[in-house]
Amino acid sequence: MFVESIKTPGLAQLSYLIGDGNEAAVIDPRRDCDDYAQMARQRGCRITHIFETHRNEDLISGAPILSEITGAPVHHGPNAAGDVTYADTVREGDTFTFGEMTLKVLETPGHTDDSLSFAIYDDNFGEQAVGVFTGDAMFVGDVGRTDFYPDRAKEVAGCLYDSLEKILSLGDQAILYPAHGAGSVCGDNMANREFSTLGYERDNNPMLQIRDRDKFIDRKVAEHHEQPPYFRTMERLNLKGAAPTRRVLTPPALSAEKFDQLCDNAVVIDVRGISAYLGAHLPRSIALPEDMIPAFAGWILDEQDELLLVAESSEQAEAAARHLARIGFDHVLGYLDPALPGWAAAARPFDSVPVVDVDEVKARVADNGEQWSLLDVRGRNEIEEGVVSGATTIYIGHLPQQLEQLSKEKHYTTMCASGARATIAASILRRAGFQHVDVFLGSMGAWQAAGNSVTQ
Amino acid sequence: MFVESIKTPGLAQLSYLIGDGNEAAVIDPRRDCDDYAQMARQRGCRITHIFETHRNEDLISGAPILSEITGAPVHHGPNAAGDVTYADTVREGDTFTFGEMTLKVLETPGHTDDSLSFAIYDDNFGEQAVGVFTGDAMFVGDVGRTDFYPDRAKEVAGCLYDSLEKILSLGDQAILYPAHGAGSVCGDNMANREFSTLGYERDNNPMLQIRDRDKFIDRKVAEHHEQPPYFRTMERLNLKGAAPTRRVLTPPALSAEKFDQLCDNAVVIDVRGISAYLGAHLPRSIALPEDMIPAFAGWILDEQDELLLVAESSEQAEAAARHLARIGFDHVLGYLDPALPGWAAAARPFDSVPVVDVDEVKARVADNGEQWSLLDVRGRNEIEEGVVSGATTIYIGHLPQQLEQLSKEKHYTTMCASGARATIAASILRRAGFQHVDVFLGSMGAWQAAGNSVTQ
Amino acid sequence: MFVESIKTPGLAQLSYLIGDGNEAAVIDPRRDCDDYAQMARQRGCRITHIFETHRNEDLISGAPILSEITGAPVHHGPNAAGDVTYADTVREGDTFTFGEMTLKVLETPGHTDDSLSFAIYDDNFGEQAVGVFTGDAMFVGDVGRTDFYPDRAKEVAGCLYDSLEKILSLGDQAILYPAHGAGSVCGDNMANREFSTLGYERDNNPMLQIRDRDKFIDRKVAEHHEQPPYFRTMERLNLKGAAPTRRVLTPPALSAEKFDQLCDNAVVIDVRGISAYLGAHLPRSIALPEDMIPAFAGWILDEQDELLLVAESSEQAEAAARHLARIGFDHVLGYLDPALPGWAAAARPFDSVPVVDVDEVKARVADNGEQWSLLDVRGRNEIEEGVVSGATTIYIGHLPQQLEQLSKEKHYTTMCASGARATIAASILRRAGFQHVDVFLGSMGAWQAAGNSVTQ
Amino acid sequence: MFVESIKTPGLAQLSYLIGDGNEAAVIDPRRDCDDYAQMARQRGCRITHIFETHRNEDLISGAPILSEITGAPVHHGPNAAGDVTYADTVREGDTFTFGEMTLKVLETPGHTDDSLSFAIYDDNFGEQAVGVFTGDAMFVGDVGRTDFYPDRAKEVAGCLYDSLEKILSLGDQAILYPAHGAGSVCGDNMANREFSTLGYERDNNPMLQIRDRDKFIDRKVAEHHEQPPYFRTMERLNLKGAAPTRRVLTPPALSAEKFDQLCDNAVVIDVRGISAYLGAHLPRSIALPEDMIPAFAGWILDEQDELLLVAESSEQAEAAARHLARIGFDHVLGYLDPALPGWAAAARPFDSVPVVDVDEVKARVADNGEQWSLLDVRGRNEIEEGVVSGATTIYIGHLPQQLEQLSKEKHYTTMCASGARATIAASILRRAGFQHVDVFLGSMGAWQAAGNSVTQ
Repeated sequence: MFVESIKTPGLAQLSYLIGDGNEAAVIDPRRDCDDYAQMARQRGCRITHIFETHRNEDLISGAPILSEITGAPVHHGPNAAGDVTYADTVREGDTFTFGEMTLKVLETPGHTDDSLSFAIYDDNFGEQAVGVFTGDAMFVGDVGRTDFYPDRAKEVAGCLYDSLEKILSLGDQAILYPAHGAGSVCGDNMANREFSTLGYERDNNPMLQIRDRDKFIDRKVAEHHEQPPYFRTMERLNLKGAAPTRRVLTPPALSAEKFDQLCDNAVVIDVRGISAYLGAHLPRSIALPEDMIPAFAGWILDEQDELLLVAESSEQAEAAARHLARIGFDHVLGYLDPALPGWAAAARPFDSVPVVDVDEVKARVADNGEQWSLLDVRGRNEIEEGVVSGATTIYIGHLPQQLEQLSKEKHYTTMCASGARATIAASILRRAGFQHVDVFLGSMGAWQAAGNSVTQ
Repeated sequence: MFVESIKTPGLAQLSYLIGDGNEAAVIDPRRDCDDYAQMARQRGCRITHIFETHRNEDLISGAPILSEITGAPVHHGPNAAGDVTYADTVREGDTFTFGEMTLKVLETPGHTDDSLSFAIYDDNFGEQAVGVFTGDAMFVGDVGRTDFYPDRAKEVAGCLYDSLEKILSLGDQAILYPAHGAGSVCGDNMANREFSTLGYERDNNPMLQIRDRDKFIDRKVAEHHEQPPYFRTMERLNLKGAAPTRRVLTPPALSAEKFDQLCDNAVVIDVRGISAYLGAHLPRSIALPEDMIPAFAGWILDEQDELLLVAESSEQAEAAARHLARIGFDHVLGYLDPALPGWAAAARPFDSVPVVDVDEVKARVADNGEQWSLLDVRGRNEIEEGVVSGATTIYIGHLPQQLEQLSKEKHYTTMCASGARATIAASILRRAGFQHVDVFLGSMGAWQAAGNSVTQ
Repeated sequence: MFVESIKTPGLAQLSYLIGDGNEAAVIDPRRDCDDYAQMARQRGCRITHIFETHRNEDLISGAPILSEITGAPVHHGPNAAGDVTYADTVREGDTFTFGEMTLKVLETPGHTDDSLSFAIYDDNFGEQAVGVFTGDAMFVGDVGRTDFYPDRAKEVAGCLYDSLEKILSLGDQAILYPAHGAGSVCGDNMANREFSTLGYERDNNPMLQIRDRDKFIDRKVAEHHEQPPYFRTMERLNLKGAAPTRRVLTPPALSAEKFDQLCDNAVVIDVRGISAYLGAHLPRSIALPEDMIPAFAGWILDEQDELLLVAESSEQAEAAARHLARIGFDHVLGYLDPALPGWAAAARPFDSVPVVDVDEVKARVADNGEQWSLLDVRGRNEIEEGVVSGATTIYIGHLPQQLEQLSKEKHYTTMCASGARATIAASILRRAGFQHVDVFLGSMGAWQAAGNSVTQ
Repeated sequence: MFVESIKTPGLAQLSYLIGDGNEAAVIDPRRDCDDYAQMARQRGCRITHIFETHRNEDLISGAPILSEITGAPVHHGPNAAGDVTYADTVREGDTFTFGEMTLKVLETPGHTDDSLSFAIYDDNFGEQAVGVFTGDAMFVGDVGRTDFYPDRAKEVAGCLYDSLEKILSLGDQAILYPAHGAGSVCGDNMANREFSTLGYERDNNPMLQIRDRDKFIDRKVAEHHEQPPYFRTMERLNLKGAAPTRRVLTPPALSAEKFDQLCDNAVVIDVRGISAYLGAHLPRSIALPEDMIPAFAGWILDEQDELLLVAESSEQAEAAARHLARIGFDHVLGYLDPALPGWAAAARPFDSVPVVDVDEVKARVADNGEQWSLLDVRGRNEIEEGVVSGATTIYIGHLPQQLEQLSKEKHYTTMCASGARATIAASILRRAGFQHVDVFLGSMGAWQAAGNSVTQ
């Protein structure tokens, strides 16, 4: 009797392979789902069922694809926003058995109307649940967001409250298996801890300390979460079922000449690390380091864009293509090999972005010139904890749409928490034709570590 | 500038990834062809062309599948037996460039009418070929079989002679890259050596020592080769292009109960080692050790059979399914887990086959009883080198069709070279209802090592 | 903040890598311990501490070896039977921090005098433990054995009772991380479940339902556990620190000729599956399937024996050598390649063992002949649940020392639960010169599944 | 019968596993030599012999280490500069057999006095060699350097001429297996092709077209090769036998704080890509991208230096440590995780280096100012093909020792072929206290691609 978690980096999504004897189930598979079948093989199991805790909005579900591979049916909750064409509907109290493990369905709406939790039991022992898969209802240190039905904000927050009560009633002994870990956009305050129990959460999860239903609702309604535009695509695909990924995700290696020919009709994204972009990059390329793709590609790229990658290696290009495929960006034409300095050695143009440190920024702030502005691209929750006095604030995700708020005549220094998102922002500005852009490396981290104050 | 060979075990088929700079080609890809794309990735290449030396008859071509994955076109020779729908036609003298390597097409019919060879050149050096891909025209220590056009036997043998002359004219310095190595049914006398050159073969390959065209033709026409019935399926699929393999080849693990339910309408094949089958096996199962599948499945199984596997482990089941997929057997329902003794512990029936050693066989031969017969299942070429006096000979591949030559009243001891094919034969007899069957373990190897004589 | 468990198959030993940020610790590493360093690398951690829950008696500790590799100190409990030369001593209440995770030492003697448990805390949350590493004190569904100090049986059983109370006082919410899972000789009744919590165990673990200290002591004192003789070697090595394994564990492949030369002074163990041994094996070889090595090698082999392996493949030979190395058998000279039938094809001698099924055994039992005996080699706890009437019982582990209880004049049919241990037993008898031996395949499983009764 | 080549990247060193049946040999193993044993396992072989073509000066030999692992003896040529303590001496005509393959020793001095070649033969065929391992005597497209005995320059060049004649006399059909491929410092003009034969080289290798012994000697004596100072260390270690590498090469991950503590007594090397260093790096760190370590670490680092790494990931840190270990740099204390921008976010200092393009450099050259200088760090052979007018030339390897030729008052723009070595040079200047340094990205490649002229 086993539970194995499979974490999708960047999205911090957690899927699970569970089973006993020769039978196994997968909960919330991601799009590139061959791995589950391989893991089941190593456990000596065949996959007999696939469960979804809810219709995912932040990544493409692999459920219909894994179902095709394995022949196992997909089970989904009632009340999805549309017809989940690849799944049948399960309801409160339905049970499924794998070897001597039994899984029982709980309807736990709130995050979405179709949200389910799944409690698991060891048939050889007593009647208590040993664990529970909570989807996006309960996380380690946080609970699910409830902002997907703006018209029914209070109603769904109340639903979530009731669902959490239902989950907690399984008992303190139950191990918690949520659908996301720290780093997901599905919750801002998750603990950086990969394991917990209902008992531990009941006493320690800040949201579960709010024992009053109305106060809980008020708190949830007041929360702010970002919704990247690609969520809409995910929701659509996760009703009708997305196509499998390509069998081989590695983009082809392209010579400088070949790459150049394709550039005009494609978006060039530089998936190397932040520093590499700053040092030298292709003009008009967008900085989107491989591990930041899951969080930011959905804000910046359009589903239909043809993409060209600048990468350090074929491995990095493949990793980038995998991240992109998980959220529906399949049109990767290839990657530049060799990247810089090979590109430059053919006398092709390149660019770089200067970095400035905390002392320089402090001096500029003090100088308070009209032609310079500090552009802070952090999210609303971070901004609310304080900004450098005088900074302009536009969330990185909104920047492509709000460039008209800025002036190409001015000199901008971008900042965020450390300098990573600031570099993405700088690349967006540069691509849009802003000439005077540099990056505050270290950003708010350095600002505060150096003892400077913030305003709220 | 590189050449990497990819060997398909069992079939001893050799395919190649070649390339330079960012560009690569694949020659004669097999059906499970994701590997080529991965290898190209590691070399920093994109695959720009796929070549076939001829229409394969012993395995499913991966050319149309790899073409789909990579977008690269497939190139095939003229005069295929039908229309190779997935390829364009290339001819003598056509050239293709990869970085600074050039590939040049030679028409080298004989083995088949559409056979091509491909010479490769280093553009930075002189005009000599550095290597040549000879398909099934020339092997290390042997040349291609010419028995596929029985009506034109002499004509095609003469074609091969001329093609070999053409290949040798590339010069002694050229490295030989054939489409098969030792162990293939495409040649009986290949050397057990993975590397050679035209110069070495010119002086050492026995077939190339026959410098007279007519004598060469006589020699080829007199050769005997087996043609397993699945060759017909391969030829058909390799004109129209076969479907890709399943993304995950591992068959599902099946409990004894589940397995039993499926048994009636399926063929059970025992892919464990020879000894394991002899020790204990499921009644009516056919012995077909995993590594013998490529050579013998095509004789024993029908394309439409639903298959159930008895395997030691999921890894072995997967390896078996992979071998089966490469030659077109896709209907694998699952494998028994646990196998023996788990099956027996549920009081389900099992069988075993006794083994006898050389002393026992010698005594039986001397005894010369009417009720006992030694059944030698080796191939014609082996039989011609000598048999145990009095043995009945039926080639293992023909056994399923020629059982009526044997009597169920008699006691048979099966033999081959070592005991492996003899065990497969014993399993065929047992499945057909023969009661008195045992296996001469060690077989002709032991017979001769013990100093016994053979008759011809 | 993560906990990763690493399971050593066969021994069902569980070790753990835990950590947060850049810092990690390993709990109870096994001898082949490069894996821990690799896993830490993948987590972006350096290993700063190594902990042992107690001095292991069933496998070689990797703590001193991993300490040498990483530079991290080893921490061990007080009151080890001797001086653990490679470790310092930690005591109740000592704490260690990894990133924002804190580990706290609990002294929990009983299984051994030096037994420790380690509770872990998330510094960002409340004061409750999130998990506890219990070593051999508490398992999923069972508690530790207390038979290592026969003179102090009641005392140490009482210690364990108190230790369990101490552990449970951490609270229902704590996740349980024991040092063994189902299949270990360190507990007979562990659940076949890889996850649990203190809360679940408090209500469901049968041993924890005994709330009376004296009754608990009586129950523990009445238990029977086997102690393989190699435990003494492990205890010795785990005080002074064993040497690392060889860097490459694969034994060399040996031709039949070479193998034969080495046979006289070595023990030949056949690590293939049970069926393969039954079908054909080298005379005098001992059946010890690769996956049964951890459980039975320590009963049958002597620390100083030079070992030769018969294996299906180099992978299997390597797996066998790895199992052997983990329990201190380092003298593996090589493996036979090819095994059967290649060995037989050189006219070298081989043997086989007949199998009999439940019907045949039933008939023999009914026949009740003097010259035949059923030899049941299961353990005492299994025997107590019932035997076939008339069977002789000797535990497989004791068989090599108790052969004088049997007569070489008689015919023995060996049995166990399924036929696996029965095959090992048959091989021991054959090696000792017993001529008339066969194996009841299916054994007690088949006996009962076929509806036959047992006597107690 | 097989030959597998194992390439050590960066050094472009080629070692080989060869064998037949159950027996194999390794030729010129590198220090991290577990791989050979694993490969032999996959081939079903045991390693029975280890051969060295000569005492390596550019990397640590793994021969004594592999000998310890496998028990196989090491064979080395006569006349090594000292006593190769771990090897016995083999001489012209000695033969060794592996299955049905025979290896025969040829003494082929010239590159070194102890240089051997090894011809291989297929015992089943004629008397010609099928292949030859030429060590550093003959390469694809080039021959070995002969500058290691300056006092005997003409003598050893003549020796090499004679040795090449001896090798060529094996016949055109022999496949060439050299000890280095393109990219090695052991030859400047090797072809970028991984395969060749004696026949192809005889007609196409430029050095083998010099058919006059005296002209050959003159040509060799006139050649220029660099000798990095670490060659001395390698020569010393390869007489007495170096220690094995650490079992786990991954350096520990270090937090910014921990890293900072260790900085004072260590050399910080930045193993990220060139662009990343240019964009942002730790002050005083040396740019040494992971894949450039083999070529340049031996010039810049001292054997005793304690090293700290700045890497993008643990994988990159491990790759860097592996490269370092192969050439004797074992004192790697750890790597910074997270690197930039994490380091900056703690308000720790960082630096960057500006890049300039070909237009800017052209303008500066035209301007011809006194305060600016173009510093070209390419090697002598490259310099001889032309430089930008007015450039100062110091080979990158000599730069650390020749800084006194430069003035800290001046502004330097470093250049090489593409900008990679120029970045290393810039980091050396910056570490030495030069304030005004930038890098000509694209360098000579861009200069010429843009149509600018060079002077000689």
